[in-house]
Amino acid sequence: MSVTSPHGFVAAGVACGIKASGALDLALVATAGGRPVPAAAVFTRNRVSAAPVDVSRAHISATDGRAAAVVLNSGNANAATGAGGVEAAERMCAVTADGIGCSSSEVLVCSTGLIGIPLPIDVVEAGIPKAAAALAADGGGDAAEAIRTTDTVRKEVVVPGDGYLIGGMAKGAAMLAPNMATMLAVLTTDAAVDGAALRSALALAVEGTFNAITIDGCTSTNDTVIVLAGGGGAAPDSVAFTRALRDACASLAEQMVRDAEGATKFVRVRVKGAASDAEARRAARKVAESQLVKCSWYGEDPYWGRILSEIGTAGVHVDPDTVVVSYGDTVVAAACVAVDHDRHAVAAHMAGPEIEITADLGLGTGDATILSADLTHGYVDENMGTS
Amino acid sequence: MSVTSPHGFVAAGVACGIKASGALDLALVATAGGRPVPAAAVFTRNRVSAAPVDVSRAHISATDGRAAAVVLNSGNANAATGAGGVEAAERMCAVTADGIGCSSSEVLVCSTGLIGIPLPIDVVEAGIPKAAAALAADGGGDAAEAIRTTDTVRKEVVVPGDGYLIGGMAKGAAMLAPNMATMLAVLTTDAAVDGAALRSALALAVEGTFNAITIDGCTSTNDTVIVLAGGGGAAPDSVAFTRALRDACASLAEQMVRDAEGATKFVRVRVKGAASDAEARRAARKVAESQLVKCSWYGEDPYWGRILSEIGTAGVHVDPDTVVVSYGDTVVAAACVAVDHDRHAVAAHMAGPEIEITADLGLGTGDATILSADLTHGYVDENMGTS
Repeated sequence: MSVTSPHGFVAAGVACGIKASGALDLALVATAGGRPVPAAAVFTRNRVSAAPVDVSRAHISATDGRAAAVVLNSGNANAATGAGGVEAAERMCAVTADGIGCSSSEVLVCSTGLIGIPLPIDVVEAGIPKAAAALAADGGGDAAEAIRTTDTVRKEVVVPGDGYLIGGMAKGAAMLAPNMATMLAVLTTDAAVDGAALRSALALAVEGTFNAITIDGCTSTNDTVIVLAGGGGAAPDSVAFTRALRDACASLAEQMVRDAEGATKFVRVRVKGAASDAEARRAARKVAESQLVKCSWYGEDPYWGRILSEIGTAGVHVDPDTVVVSYGDTVVAAACVAVDHDRHAVAAHMAGPEIEITADLGLGTGDATILSADLTHGYVDENMGTS
Repeated sequence: MSVTSPHGFVAAGVACGIKASGALDLALVATAGGRPVPAAAVFTRNRVSAAPVDVSRAHISATDGRAAAVVLNSGNANAATGAGGVEAAERMCAVTADGIGCSSSEVLVCSTGLIGIPLPIDVVEAGIPKAAAALAADGGGDAAEAIRTTDTVRKEVVVPGDGYLIGGMAKGAAMLAPNMATMLAVLTTDAAVDGAALRSALALAVEGTFNAITIDGCTSTNDTVIVLAGGGGAAPDSVAFTRALRDACASLAEQMVRDAEGATKFVRVRVKGAASDAEARRAARKVAESQLVKCSWYGEDPYWGRILSEIGTAGVHVDPDTVVVSYGDTVVAAACVAVDHDRHAVAAHMAGPEIEITADLGLGTGDATILSADLTHGYVDENMGTS
């Protein structure tokens, strides 16, 4: 149940000393023997991208989509750290390459944690050889543990394909509104796919998964999703492989939302009947990112007026006279007016751990679902201070 | 210090019974004698606009910009209330017209409160004659009191011009991110200006005032700003009049932000050095609406990394190497790297009731300031439930 489930991958997680608590904070995922294999990645679209994003982007471009390892640290984002930050990220790759016997450009790097604080490269450099020495076929769990920040649980997945496996791990609990990427996720597979097929499968897989979740509307500086295809297994049908990869991404994305900072509710916001899928996505995201709507979820208050109001400002085609809003299976408003409904059923639905809201705009066939969470005292507590 | 300060206006505020608490909930502002005068208004751009918005928009268009009175209620937004809501809003205008002796289309109407609940038109109809009977030249305070919802204080302003006065009142505490409008505001003046001049002055005045504040990024269904020009005073220079009207709007807008739901900090977010004023506005708004940034303000944490990250996703031109971020007068980051600075000065600034954040993008001359507030336990408490 991890990045080492597919044949041919090893991983490790160690405590190198970035986190004062002594918790695991350095992870390695590598091919057995340090052999370069087809790799694909998507990165944050934040224009203030972190040093590891810039370095990984350069490396995967220089190798034309091949990599042998990913080195990741938590406890420091190495973002807004200037030229020193880029040097540190390059140094992480070089030391990793020494440890596993590949070239530096065949190593990708990810960091997560606080922004604007220089990475303590000395402790990281000292830790990487220890992680390389600990690399093992059962090390996936430790690696997933070592990339946690405010995550309360580690996030892992295995999806079986026809003659191959896809494994993965991820972290993410806030500053989470991925745009063509997500917080950190590393996936592996032993399917025999080439780089071009891998890139296209990953682009399709992130679309309805990592790009369809939002905790707080804040897109991070460090978002990265990486997939390594080691081969050794079957050569998959491209549609089936894309579906399997999408299932793995969907599981990790859902695990992120379920572990959102301070959250008490897991919420699916679906907008259908929109003029296009893109408009449905935009409207669902506007609802899911509304502070007022999110507070209602926390209070278990089925205040559909706020849902309608947010759709009205989402910049999409909407005719108030054709909108139908449901909580769970219960229609509460139609044509912009309250509908008599079973209030006990709605109250019971809101009281549960999962809420489903559907707004049917009644205009077209556009359909999209965004996964999100409520805005709680706990979220405010977690983000009031960094110390 | 109210809408009745300019010569020729009367107002009243009464309790008609919409609010179960018995608090004032119905306001009238009218010209003395019910005489129609030049009027201008801007309304929410929310496509799910409330019935009073639709009715007021139709009335001011039908009269070619003349009005004799504004009737306003709190405790119910008359939004998402269907055809019955429109009938109720029209009925409010008709009864008001009867009471003051003008035509129904010369009355504008505003509502504020919960969305999706039918307006109790019976109690409103019974209350309007009482309000009409109470109209007085010193009734501005009661009117301002009667439009409060979660506002903890009433919001009023008087700005003296050269031979005329501008008076105003407003309400607004959340669901507050005006777009070409704001929550409810009514302004009056005894300046001798015609409708065209009034419309152009109002359009200019809202731009850097009501449209430059955000509490939570949620644009309401009911936002309305109305100005009535009764004449009798001097005929003003148009530039001077626009400035005076802007000063009045700025005061009311600032009063709204200072009374934001649950807020403990009043925050000015300035972005300068942007490629254009529009990009500066967009970037400042992205920072001001960020849940993570707003939580930092609450915790008095000068976490500039979040400021940079939000600017990076604002969709504006930005070069991380030229950005300088300051808290108060203290530069904390430049070229995307922390700068040695006086931490005590920053801590003292963050501990105060007002925070000033400046991000100089170093690219051009674009400059804009957005006023906002922090995201607090109190905001979550106020918006968890509607009961």
